[in-house]
Amino acid sequence: VKLYRAVAQELSGMIRGGSLAAGDQLPSVRSLSRSRKISPATVLKAYEALEANGLIEARPRSGYYVREHQKQPIPPQTSRPKANSTRLDVSDLVFQTLEASRNRKVVPLGSAFPSPTYFPWPKLARYLGSSARHLDPWSTVESLPPGSVDLRQQIAKRYLRLGMSVGIEQIVVTAGALEALNLALQSVTRPGDTIAIESPTFYGCLQAAQRLGLQVVEIPMHPTEGLDIEALRTAITRFPIRACWFMTTLQHPTGATLSQPRKRELARLLAGHDIPLIEDDAYSELQFASKPELPAKAFDETGRVLHCGSFSKCLAPGYRLGWVAAGRYSADLSRRKIEASIATSLPVQQGIAQMLRHGGFDTHLTKLRRDLAASQLAAMESLQRYFPAGYRVAAPRGGYFLWVECASQVDSLDVHRRALDVGITVAPGPIFSARQQFKNYLRLNTGHPWTGATARAIQTLGTLLRRY
Amino acid sequence: VKLYRAVAQELSGMIRGGSLAAGDQLPSVRSLSRSRKISPATVLKAYEALEANGLIEARPRSGYYVREHQKQPIPPQTSRPKANSTRLDVSDLVFQTLEASRNRKVVPLGSAFPSPTYFPWPKLARYLGSSARHLDPWSTVESLPPGSVDLRQQIAKRYLRLGMSVGIEQIVVTAGALEALNLALQSVTRPGDTIAIESPTFYGCLQAAQRLGLQVVEIPMHPTEGLDIEALRTAITRFPIRACWFMTTLQHPTGATLSQPRKRELARLLAGHDIPLIEDDAYSELQFASKPELPAKAFDETGRVLHCGSFSKCLAPGYRLGWVAAGRYSADLSRRKIEASIATSLPVQQGIAQMLRHGGFDTHLTKLRRDLAASQLAAMESLQRYFPAGYRVAAPRGGYFLWVECASQVDSLDVHRRALDVGITVAPGPIFSARQQFKNYLRLNTGHPWTGATARAIQTLGTLLRRY
Repeated sequence: VKLYRAVAQELSGMIRGGSLAAGDQLPSVRSLSRSRKISPATVLKAYEALEANGLIEARPRSGYYVREHQKQPIPPQTSRPKANSTRLDVSDLVFQTLEASRNRKVVPLGSAFPSPTYFPWPKLARYLGSSARHLDPWSTVESLPPGSVDLRQQIAKRYLRLGMSVGIEQIVVTAGALEALNLALQSVTRPGDTIAIESPTFYGCLQAAQRLGLQVVEIPMHPTEGLDIEALRTAITRFPIRACWFMTTLQHPTGATLSQPRKRELARLLAGHDIPLIEDDAYSELQFASKPELPAKAFDETGRVLHCGSFSKCLAPGYRLGWVAAGRYSADLSRRKIEASIATSLPVQQGIAQMLRHGGFDTHLTKLRRDLAASQLAAMESLQRYFPAGYRVAAPRGGYFLWVECASQVDSLDVHRRALDVGITVAPGPIFSARQQFKNYLRLNTGHPWTGATARAIQTLGTLLRRY
Repeated sequence: VKLYRAVAQELSGMIRGGSLAAGDQLPSVRSLSRSRKISPATVLKAYEALEANGLIEARPRSGYYVREHQKQPIPPQTSRPKANSTRLDVSDLVFQTLEASRNRKVVPLGSAFPSPTYFPWPKLARYLGSSARHLDPWSTVESLPPGSVDLRQQIAKRYLRLGMSVGIEQIVVTAGALEALNLALQSVTRPGDTIAIESPTFYGCLQAAQRLGLQVVEIPMHPTEGLDIEALRTAITRFPIRACWFMTTLQHPTGATLSQPRKRELARLLAGHDIPLIEDDAYSELQFASKPELPAKAFDETGRVLHCGSFSKCLAPGYRLGWVAAGRYSADLSRRKIEASIATSLPVQQGIAQMLRHGGFDTHLTKLRRDLAASQLAAMESLQRYFPAGYRVAAPRGGYFLWVECASQVDSLDVHRRALDVGITVAPGPIFSARQQFKNYLRLNTGHPWTGATARAIQTLGTLLRRY
């Protein structure tokens, strides 16, 4: 990460977090340069980045100030899914997009994964090798689902640090979050049932619903505030909703996070109607804030929340390790895991448990979040510089996606194809919707070190967008 | 393995394999003792074991001879499933049996797994650790399904050594054989379809069919010759069979192996009716014979066989690695794998690939097969000694299960419960059938080093069986 970006990111955090209020004067370039022991040019570059991003303004012969009415980019509109339920037809498009992002030579703005360069591979390898060497052969028979006691203890400890009491008896280890989500969905639905999902939503949710023969009701999302709970309340009265599948923190693809009070409201609403909540929380460790938002699981008083987590995005991509804290459904979940794949790779479970215990996971997370925040800032700058006016975007409080609403005449499938021709991937909006809505939306991946090539790719996309 | 058992096993192999014919005289105790440099007592013990097992007879003042009409134990009867199709109701019993076998203090005659002491753990750990250390971070993005090229090449090479040409493009890596089987079944059926299965069958097959809302038609099995192909032919004319799920080699639980000519007949029959065959071949590497029987996949001329294999029983229990060579369904299988769990743990894939390339897999297999053969022989002896007359059993040509038909009044569920009370597990017959048939059958695990405790457990079971 370039130094100026780190400085800009820190100040941006202070402004967004309220430590620097509208109208406050920033330190002069000279004084910040001295106090931080960095060059004045670096400070100046950071201030210019914040200015380009609309957070601060330069007043002649006076200095830099936090803007009164911050010239924030406009966030996308609240989604307006059709209110009836749908049988799904997910297209080949999801796989085309995934396929295109595999090639390391493309600019991976359409990738679903953060850059593999951000992870502690040598440490992971050390703990994996050591766990395998010390594997008690009999544990391969004894550690069938719910899974390794060591690992489940470490996961329970992380809940405890958030102030949540989640016993190891309700934690079932899985081969990543997607297996957890699929098993959870099987556990609480039967073919033909109706479930509520977000609009837009993670395509894995659409595929799972299609595979299991489920009807879906799409609930509107605000692009930063998250799920429209009133709309959900109405949907519950109109449709026989058997379960909900929601991402309540850093939602995929919008990045929206439901506030804690609204998560509590959600948990109570669903408990009152005896509706289980499958809570996909694969990105929660990527929240930039030092005090992260809790999941809805924290407000689950009746054991109806199946909280699905993963180490794939925050610690060990490719190791395939996740879990579900399944509340009252944990015994059933454990059996379904046995039926699906017997167990999760035991050396992997124990290696990650050792890494969590001794490997400095939190130190790694601090650095990862800082890197992702810096890239996000750089991406926002690049959009502002290169995208034609009229696009809308909100900077999520974590993760590595931007959900960009382009002008209404833009066809993101066409953008996807044209960009691919010049070595750039993007994820087109329609893959995030049961009815292939969001025709003029793009999901852009900002989870890679921001380079000149990335900025040029944004510039190229901007040029493409001007054609419509 | 005790020395006398190794000798007995070798001779038993020669007799069963035809190298020693009925009426042939065996070497004298003294001459074998000298030529093998083992004590006469050991030779005598080996001969007594073979005699107890009905393979040879002592003729006074003459020596030991291969029996004319070998007093073989009688094999169980050919199964007689009801001929109509069934909607399933698999009980809690499968899970109770699995649960009971986890405890390392019980005598694991009911376990589904071979003894973990039989596997090359230090070598596996070394290759796993080394693969993790050398993992190219970008490969975690690039090696999505179908999976690691290295591993798929190694798997293709093993097919090639059998004389089978299976290209890496049709191999999809999975988290063990069960995931492979589940994905294969999803790929070729829709809810409500009818599939043909064996009777008795692996309970994982029953659970999968139940979960996917499939009807099953149970096809009779001969306890050593395997599937009754004529019965299958009739069933195809009577029911709309959309797919078959068969274990054609060392079938679970019977241990039956369909001969190669009959496998060819099976493949042709199904191809003629455009019916895909899901071939569960998880035990094929455990065949005792130096020249193993090929799978039905070897006779697949139209790409309709989905051949599912695993390293869990022959190399790396708990690592959770398997595959499917999916013929014409491989592209669909690959997508289903992504939808189910994104990918299989990459360090595990690459570690096993390295082990296959450099780790002496075949040397390990030779020893494993010898150990399993010795335990099987010892188990057959113990049954003969301790079980009440009237039971039927056939010694399979590999693997580690005996499928024992007890007297008709025996209730194996009751045996299961009573045995558990005294620290012994057994797998009761009804868990292997859609209608909970096989009430008087037991599946016994012989895949553990045979000890005094095991023999005493067989004796205890014998005493229990006399009560009925």
